[in-house]
Formats: sequence, C-alpha cells, structure tokens
Amino acid sequence: MQVGVVGCNGRVGKLIVKELLSGNWADKGLLLAGGTARDSSNVPDGCPAMESESELFEKSDVVIDFTLPEGTRKHVNLAAQHKTPIVIGTTGLTQEDEEFLQQKSKEVCIVYAANMSVGVNLLLDLVEKAASCLEQDWDIEIFETHHKYKVDAPSGTALALGKAAASGRNGNLDVLADYERHGNIGSREKGKIGFSVARGGDVVGEHTVFFFGEGERIELTHRATDRRLFAKGALRAALWCKEKPAGLYSMRDVLDL
Amino acid sequence: MQVGVVGCNGRVGKLIVKELLSGNWADKGLLLAGGTARDSSNVPDGCPAMESESELFEKSDVVIDFTLPEGTRKHVNLAAQHKTPIVIGTTGLTQEDEEFLQQKSKEVCIVYAANMSVGVNLLLDLVEKAASCLEQDWDIEIFETHHKYKVDAPSGTALALGKAAASGRNGNLDVLADYERHGNIGSREKGKIGFSVARGGDVVGEHTVFFFGEGERIELTHRATDRRLFAKGALRAALWCKEKPAGLYSMRDVLDL
Amino acid sequence: MQVGVVGCNGRVGKLIVKELLSGNWADKGLLLAGGTARDSSNVPDGCPAMESESELFEKSDVVIDFTLPEGTRKHVNLAAQHKTPIVIGTTGLTQEDEEFLQQKSKEVCIVYAANMSVGVNLLLDLVEKAASCLEQDWDIEIFETHHKYKVDAPSGTALALGKAAASGRNGNLDVLADYERHGNIGSREKGKIGFSVARGGDVVGEHTVFFFGEGERIELTHRATDRRLFAKGALRAALWCKEKPAGLYSMRDVLDL
Amino acid sequence: MQVGVVGCNGRVGKLIVKELLSGNWADKGLLLAGGTARDSSNVPDGCPAMESESELFEKSDVVIDFTLPEGTRKHVNLAAQHKTPIVIGTTGLTQEDEEFLQQKSKEVCIVYAANMSVGVNLLLDLVEKAASCLEQDWDIEIFETHHKYKVDAPSGTALALGKAAASGRNGNLDVLADYERHGNIGSREKGKIGFSVARGGDVVGEHTVFFFGEGERIELTHRATDRRLFAKGALRAALWCKEKPAGLYSMRDVLDL
Repeated sequence: MQVGVVGCNGRVGKLIVKELLSGNWADKGLLLAGGTARDSSNVPDGCPAMESESELFEKSDVVIDFTLPEGTRKHVNLAAQHKTPIVIGTTGLTQEDEEFLQQKSKEVCIVYAANMSVGVNLLLDLVEKAASCLEQDWDIEIFETHHKYKVDAPSGTALALGKAAASGRNGNLDVLADYERHGNIGSREKGKIGFSVARGGDVVGEHTVFFFGEGERIELTHRATDRRLFAKGALRAALWCKEKPAGLYSMRDVLDL
Repeated sequence: MQVGVVGCNGRVGKLIVKELLSGNWADKGLLLAGGTARDSSNVPDGCPAMESESELFEKSDVVIDFTLPEGTRKHVNLAAQHKTPIVIGTTGLTQEDEEFLQQKSKEVCIVYAANMSVGVNLLLDLVEKAASCLEQDWDIEIFETHHKYKVDAPSGTALALGKAAASGRNGNLDVLADYERHGNIGSREKGKIGFSVARGGDVVGEHTVFFFGEGERIELTHRATDRRLFAKGALRAALWCKEKPAGLYSMRDVLDL
Repeated sequence: MQVGVVGCNGRVGKLIVKELLSGNWADKGLLLAGGTARDSSNVPDGCPAMESESELFEKSDVVIDFTLPEGTRKHVNLAAQHKTPIVIGTTGLTQEDEEFLQQKSKEVCIVYAANMSVGVNLLLDLVEKAASCLEQDWDIEIFETHHKYKVDAPSGTALALGKAAASGRNGNLDVLADYERHGNIGSREKGKIGFSVARGGDVVGEHTVFFFGEGERIELTHRATDRRLFAKGALRAALWCKEKPAGLYSMRDVLDL
Repeated sequence: MQVGVVGCNGRVGKLIVKELLSGNWADKGLLLAGGTARDSSNVPDGCPAMESESELFEKSDVVIDFTLPEGTRKHVNLAAQHKTPIVIGTTGLTQEDEEFLQQKSKEVCIVYAANMSVGVNLLLDLVEKAASCLEQDWDIEIFETHHKYKVDAPSGTALALGKAAASGRNGNLDVLADYERHGNIGSREKGKIGFSVARGGDVVGEHTVFFFGEGERIELTHRATDRRLFAKGALRAALWCKEKPAGLYSMRDVLDL
C-alpha cells in the first residue's frame, strides 16, 4: 500500500514519514507515496513532495492526516472524491466536524481517533468492560500525568477513559464527572467518576483508571514514553484500511476489540 | 435463597457465615441455612448446626464449599443427588478431581474457581483480551507480591494470569513461562511470559501483568487488602446459581465476562 | 514501663490497649498501667480502670493521648505536674494549642505527631532530603488516596508531606501549593508543589510524592493497609520517652532521623 | 570550566558532547574543551579534536571518562600527572582497578560512580537511610525492570541499591541477598534482601525498593526514561569538581547527601 501524508512536516507527520523511510513497514506492505506541506520546501528529506493534495490522494492507497480541523475537512472531501481511505489523528474537532465525518463516511473508509497509540485504545476497551462488569459500589477514579507544558486538564485521553467508564455503566460522563477536590469535599458520591491530575518534567503521558472495591482494587495503567508510538498507531490503522468498505471507524475497530 | 456452608468453621467458611449473619446479603436474597463442621461444637455462634451434610444439602438452595479435596468430592456427590447447586473454592484439586467435577456437572450446577475475588476474575479476562489484541512483540511480565509466610512461588493466581495471557495468544504456559532470572540471562526471548516474585510483611496479595511495547506499556494490577473478599466472591457466585441449568461454571461465567 | 491510656475506649485508644494486652510489647518493656474513659464502664475488658486521670498519670511511666484538643490541654498539664512523659496523637490542635505544648515541654517530655505511623514519619524525612538535594527544576507533585468517607482534601498527611518538601527548599507551602487543576491551567509554574486527590473504597491511606526531572523521576510512596499501625507507632514513641529530658519532640525524633 | 571528553564518540561520550554543544551548560560555567577518540576522524561535529589525551588533560579543567577499564587506568594516570580532576562513569572496574583509583586519588580529585543519574544516586542515600531507620522486621525487596536486550540480572544499579540497604543495617549483601524464588520456597527469612527482575520492551531502567512492615509499607522508586540523564549527571559532577582537593568521591558526595 502506498501511504500519503498530509502535513508531512508536522509534529506527528514528520515521525510518520521517518517510520516509513526506515523501511520497517515495507515487509508489512506499507510504502511512502509522498507528502504535502504548506510550504513544499519543508517536505522532509527522502519524502516525495506532491504538487497538490489532490495528486497525493490520487497516488495513495491511504492518506494519514495529523493536521488542523479546517485542513481535515478539506482532506475528507478529497478522500471521498478519490475513494482513498483516510486515517485522521487531528484533535480539536467540533461536534459539527464530527458530524461531517459521519456523513462523508458513507462514501469512503475513515478512521478517526484522538489518541492513536495501540495501548490507550486497548485500555479504553478494558476500562469499558471493567466498568460494565463491576457493580456500582466500585468507585472509579482516573489519574493522569503529563509534562509541565501541557495546558489542559484533564487530558483528552483521560476524558476518553472517563467516557469509556461511564459508557460501561450506561451513564453520561457530563453528569458523573468529579473534577475538583479541595477543602471540605464531603463523602464521595456513589457512581461518580473522579479525576486527578499531576504535571511535571517531560512525561509523555500516563493514565491510570482505578476501580476501588471493598478489600480489593483494580488499577489499569498506560504509560507512553515515546511520541513515536502515535505514528506507529496511525500506520497500523493505515494497514487495516485495505479493502475496507466505506464507514467511520475508530482505533478500537482497527484493533478488533 | 438459603445458603449452606460446609466446613463453616474453616478459614474462609467462617468469614462466609459472618457475612451472612451480618444481614448485608438479606436484601439481595441470601440467608444462612446453616453449616456443618467436622466437630459440630465448632459451628460459629448464630449458625444453625446441621446434623449431617445430607441434611444441609436438603435444606439449602445452594451450598458453599471451601474445604479439602477429599471432602469436596463427597460434597459434589451430595450436590448432584439433591440437585443443589454448589460453589467450590477448595484449592489443590488434582486433574482427576477436576474431571470428576466435569462429569458430575451434567447433573447439577457447579461453580469452581481457585480465586473467588471478583477483581482477580475480572483481571483474568482483561489479561486474556489484552494478550490477544497485542502483537507478539509486546513482552508480557507478571509480578506478584504476598506476605512473608507464603511458601509457594509464583502464586496460584499469578499462574492463572499467565495461563490467561498464554491462552490469549493461543499458547501454552508450560512452554512460554520464564521463572528464573539471575546472572547472565541473555536477551529476552520473544513470546516468553516472565514471572517475578516479592515476599514481605502482611501483604494479602498483589498482582501486576505488564505488557511492554515500544514506547508504551500497559500495566494491569489487582491489589487485595482484605481476605473477606474471598467470602464475598463466593456469595456472589451463590446468588448467580439461582435457577441455572446443570453445568460446570467458573467465576468468569458468574461475572458474565 | 507502665503505659497509661487516656481515652482508652476511643478509636485508636482501644487499639493501643489491645496491643498492650496482646503481650507483644512486654518483652520490649511495655506494660499496661490502665486507662481512663469518659464513662468508666466503657473501659475495655482487661484494662485496669483508673479512678481519675490524676491517678493514671501518677501510676504510669508514660501516657498516650488520642483524644480531643480540650482534653489534651488538661492532660498536658497533668503530665507536667506528675513529670510523666506524654505521647500525643490528637489532631486538630490550633496554633495556640501548639504553643501551649511548646511552653509545657520545658517541664516534661512531650511527643506530638499528627500521624503516628513509622512509615509516614520516615517518609517526611526522605521527602525533605530529596527536595533539598534536587534542583528547583525538579517538579514536585503529591498524590493521595483515601476511602470514600474521608471528607477533607488533601489529607493532613499530604499537607505534612508538602510542608516537608517546601521546607527542603526553604520555601513556604502556603505560597507554593497548587491544589486545583481543571480546565485551561496553562503551563506548570516552576517551584510549585501540586496536589492531587483520589477517593474510593476502603483505602486506609496512600501517599506518593513525585519528583519529576528531565528523563527521570523519583517516586516516594507510603501505603497503610491497617489502622493498627497508628497504635504501634504510639507505643514505639512511648518506649522512646524513657529517661528523656523535658522537651517537645516529634515522631521524627523518635525515629532518630 | 573547560570540559574534556575522552572517548567522545562513545555511547555516553557522544551525549555529553551534545549537551555541551547545546549551550545549556554555558551559563553554569561549563564549556567544551574538546575530545579524543580512538579514531580521531570519529570526533563528533563541532567538538575540537585533541592530538593526544595528554593535550586534552592539559587544556581541560576537568575530564569526563565513559570508556573501558584499561583506558580508564591510563586516564587516571594522566589526571594525576596534570592535576586535572576526572569524572569516571566507566563500568566493569575490578576491585584492583578500584584500589588503583583509591591510591591515585591522593594526587587528584576523582569522582567515580557506576550510575551517573542524579535520581539513582539520591535514591541510594534514601534507601540507606530508610534501611537504617526501620527495624529488622521490615522486609526489604528490590524490583527492577529493563529493556529486553539487557543480559545481566539483577542490574548493577539494583545491586547497588541492595548494598545501600545492607549497609544501612550494617549487613553484607553477599550474605543477605535472595535472588531466586521459584517452587516451594518456604517462609521468607528475616533480614534477607530479595531481588526480582522483569525484562521487556525498551524500558531504560526502573527500580523500586520496597520496605514491607505490618499494615504499612514504603516504596522508593526511580524511573529513567531518557539515556541523556547519564550525561547530565556527569556534567553535574564536573561542575562540582571545581577547586576540590584531591580525593576519591562518589556521586553521593557531589549531591552532598
């Protein structure tokens, strides 16, 4: 499969190109078709620069997109037009954007996930399963740690884990989430999902979901130590797209959970 | 449901009687029918002493058995005879014993599990799922900690977790297990499942299954802090037995995993 | 040494009496002199009931006090009067109370600590040392977990750990503490000490102090799994009092850190 | 201070040069004097290549050495001759080599440590202190995890932590260490120091020292996520050497523990 990379000099785009150029994915069937960048002089060494995004979608069997919401809407249109599957790791999509994806997915295969790491996506499934198996009197708490520069709290991944836990109990995170605990907070309310946040150093990203029962507990943890894993997750998704029918898929579909 | 307890003055039997007498299970529908003990003068206060095990099976809707292998064979015969479901937490059963359970389970509902805690049994399922989702190049390691008096290593639960992991990869733990790491051990062999063991203090029992990938990892942990949870797990299994057809079930069935 | 226990039917007082009656402390030289309770009929079985607190201080070589602030002031007066060392685990003392202790400690040996566990008090010292050794660009974060009924957050012990960390850097926790992280929080401010809180199940109390550097981190954790350790810590302090000169001491003095 | 790097194209030597060339250390007073390599064509870009090691010691205020034992002996002679302090991170030194260092340290300042990370060296001190404070009935266990290619077990750092723990109890690790736990191991022997080992993925190095008491425990953990920290530790040691009298020092001296 020929893989195209839009935004190939972006933070993650660059890592995807590097992975493909390393040759590690060739025996799995993935080759680099080329990339596009806002400024074509910025295309990384060794990566064929395409004249236009249209050309990229034409020459690729799958395109990977870690860009910005406005770019992504355009790319999804091109994907539909060329019937080229697209793997989207862009974050910050609005609900309207997501509905657009839903609509366009009738025409082409779209994989969309806020976190492309294999481990986090597996964890989402384990958390949902655990939440659905354990009775309501098991208290759920989510603790996350990121580097000191991260500005939002809790992380998007922590929120996704919270949604998976709420969903396992047929609940709604908007109602169940408990984000602040300072001062006289009273006893814990049954059914709530608590969040706690640490920030420090250069931590790539760590998440633990606790399930506290009486006399026992379960702790489900993911630790990321290398940003490249987001690139690898996207490539795994690209591989999976081969000959898939049109539809909107998540990384959890890719992993066949 | 009337619950009978054979060996009601045993280490766990005693805790089961205590739980039932506390009244906490009445609203869920579990009441204490009574118990038997080798020496009937040892039946705990408040627990109706049955004249015979036969009477206990007659008067109970379900019987719980944390005794010894030879006793358990007898109890399974009585369960089949009286069509009374039985929950078995006895450890140390031979393969022959287990085949006997299999055979008798054609006549009556039998729940059998070496570890009755809800959390560990859920963990078995999460581990199997994780192992089956993650590619072979994710290295699996199991670390367990128990109190300083525990004589066997690794724990039975650690081995069960290892079996769950191996099974998730369609492998055989006998072949894959790596129990010793001291001196010049060479590089890790792909596909192996490593075990490590700590002993100290009064730790009830803690298990972590690590899945190490490149740049990320998943850690699935269970911590037990109170032995009573084994009693609670057995009572949950007893509740589940209600109106179940004959068959041999595990705690994983009880939890509907 | 004869040990007296004021409030001997209190939550911790009871555990101290139980420890002394178990005989485990006799070979170390501690015996139970007796106890007082508001209602003398509530004195635990096997514990000699004293007619008055005055008698208790008279007949004891050391007195242990886990009561309430107003009682503790009275007890400290009696300790000074009888020259009987006193070990105080009462919480909620005001700054005025603490000054009173300071003043009275010119006349008698007083050990005072909000948390009597050996482990936590050692941890205080390790945290102070680590904070003083590590440069300011190591970010300090404190994460604590307690049972679902705990109403205040962060725990008193977490705050004590924060004070130890601040003190190691010659800083003031009132200025450095960061208690809330929700929404757009911006980059972490250098030198801050962050707190995060989880609540669930029946967790006795767990605290981790993280020191995040670049490419490495240190995590210092204490886990309590049994409330009896507070009683044991108090008895260790009682032993230590023997023949000590007047003065106000902490558990860290007891442990000779 | 002008810093010289022998073996400047070695695994760690290269990282030290990179750190110095980044300019991050200039405001602390460290500049790159230059380096030597077996093959001078291998000296990294931007690093002045010295004609001889003698010239390097002549032109440097401190030299850093991550090479091999035979090279290190020669370098120590040069350091003594030129009165140039030397920081040694070479591993695998024999007892004889170490005695040679001891002898030469009468003439020049030598810093020698098997692990140059700031965190691990602080941890050594915390472990020794904890071991000396906690009574013998606290069980000590050391658990380490490294990448799948590491061939020796336990790691040198785990052994160093064991020595620190033994030393805190005035004991000898050779006598106290317990390296294997498989099968029927019997109850834990009081005073032993247990080791357990996990191997997987690309873990740079993680160590936890557990102290298990009754009803509580302390866990002291170090996690390395970036190999550059070994370079940074060496540079911190180099800074510290300034105007130090002759003597043999460890990283723990550098950190002023």
